[in-house]
Amino acid sequence: MKLAVVLLSGGLDSAVTLAIARREGFEAHALSFDYGQRHRIEIESARRVAASLGARAHRVALIDLRVFGGSALTADIEVPQGRSADEMSHGIPITYVPARNTIFLSYALAWAEVLKCSDIFLGVNAVDYSGYPDCRPEFLRAFEDLAALATRAGIDGARFEVRAPLLHLSKAEIIRKGTELGVDFALTHSCYDPSSNGGACGRCDSCQLRRKGFQEAGLVDRIRYATT
Amino acid sequence: MKLAVVLLSGGLDSAVTLAIARREGFEAHALSFDYGQRHRIEIESARRVAASLGARAHRVALIDLRVFGGSALTADIEVPQGRSADEMSHGIPITYVPARNTIFLSYALAWAEVLKCSDIFLGVNAVDYSGYPDCRPEFLRAFEDLAALATRAGIDGARFEVRAPLLHLSKAEIIRKGTELGVDFALTHSCYDPSSNGGACGRCDSCQLRRKGFQEAGLVDRIRYATT
Repeated sequence: MKLAVVLLSGGLDSAVTLAIARREGFEAHALSFDYGQRHRIEIESARRVAASLGARAHRVALIDLRVFGGSALTADIEVPQGRSADEMSHGIPITYVPARNTIFLSYALAWAEVLKCSDIFLGVNAVDYSGYPDCRPEFLRAFEDLAALATRAGIDGARFEVRAPLLHLSKAEIIRKGTELGVDFALTHSCYDPSSNGGACGRCDSCQLRRKGFQEAGLVDRIRYATT
Repeated sequence: MKLAVVLLSGGLDSAVTLAIARREGFEAHALSFDYGQRHRIEIESARRVAASLGARAHRVALIDLRVFGGSALTADIEVPQGRSADEMSHGIPITYVPARNTIFLSYALAWAEVLKCSDIFLGVNAVDYSGYPDCRPEFLRAFEDLAALATRAGIDGARFEVRAPLLHLSKAEIIRKGTELGVDFALTHSCYDPSSNGGACGRCDSCQLRRKGFQEAGLVDRIRYATT
């Protein structure tokens, strides 16, 4: 059976990515990070998602990005609330974590090399608002180039592939896809606001994108929002 | 004053690298990793080296590579002892840690972006025996390409530079260089064998390379070895 490492945040997109990897026949090794993020509830969501979608293994790697500061998700900066789609579409968000996907992919690469597999799944998306530099296709290709040079497996001829099946899908398309594949979205967590205590504020960028996605998909989101 | 991130392991090479960065006028931000390595004594060496060479800051990032296994430095695999130079020069050593420099450089990149600096110093070397894929010049260039795409700073036009001033020096040349720059090598730790309890076995690949380097440089190594 073919193996893959799947980066799993506990959010909606990575859950669908895991479901796609499973549907493609991969024995999925899910990888989450405890990186001092303020929304640690995501890790618990990731555990439930990994179990419900039949991941073969799920590891949580402890890393500490707070040592550097520099982002609303790791330091004490206020998470923006109630921004319009237009505001969201300008510039890189304050929730940008420096070099985050580079760090995450590096760990995935380490595990892939130990497992002797060459597929790494990542739920990044470039259609709905993102603005993160490390969600762009050219970044993913550059990481593949690096991986070939960085590893013993690469020297032995392995070509690591970073698979981003959601890259060109809208949030509504991602939700429809996940529904087809049996993803239980009630297990996922999208809210960026730590004061929601495991619930969903309904107003941060991430909640707004999720609500809009379900609306456009014509599907019901079974999580409860603090605001309508 | 210009800033740089300097990866500092506590070993001889990275100490000389830090001294070079300081000599070139950089305000050095030294970065070490507590990565579950069995030779944790290196971190204490790194602290002493950072202080003695006037690093502006020293951070130790906690990461856990043991979650994946796969290397003599992180799992319970025996460290090779008493190998000949010929044995050492064949293949990739068992002490290879999958994707290690990729992970280390990713963290350095995160910190560099927070500090708004673009120079990252790394003490890798390609002359004396290495065999690690992620010590090759082409790997370092690929990381620079990735960094330009991975970051907000890159989008804004920053070009990150991975500086590896020891890349083409022999161990003896590195030791002479460090001596010129006032590095106190007695503070550094090179031994890979955890059973040495902070001492130096004198027989692992790393101890052998160090001893040979001092010998060739015609200088005295003030650390004490368990074997002659």
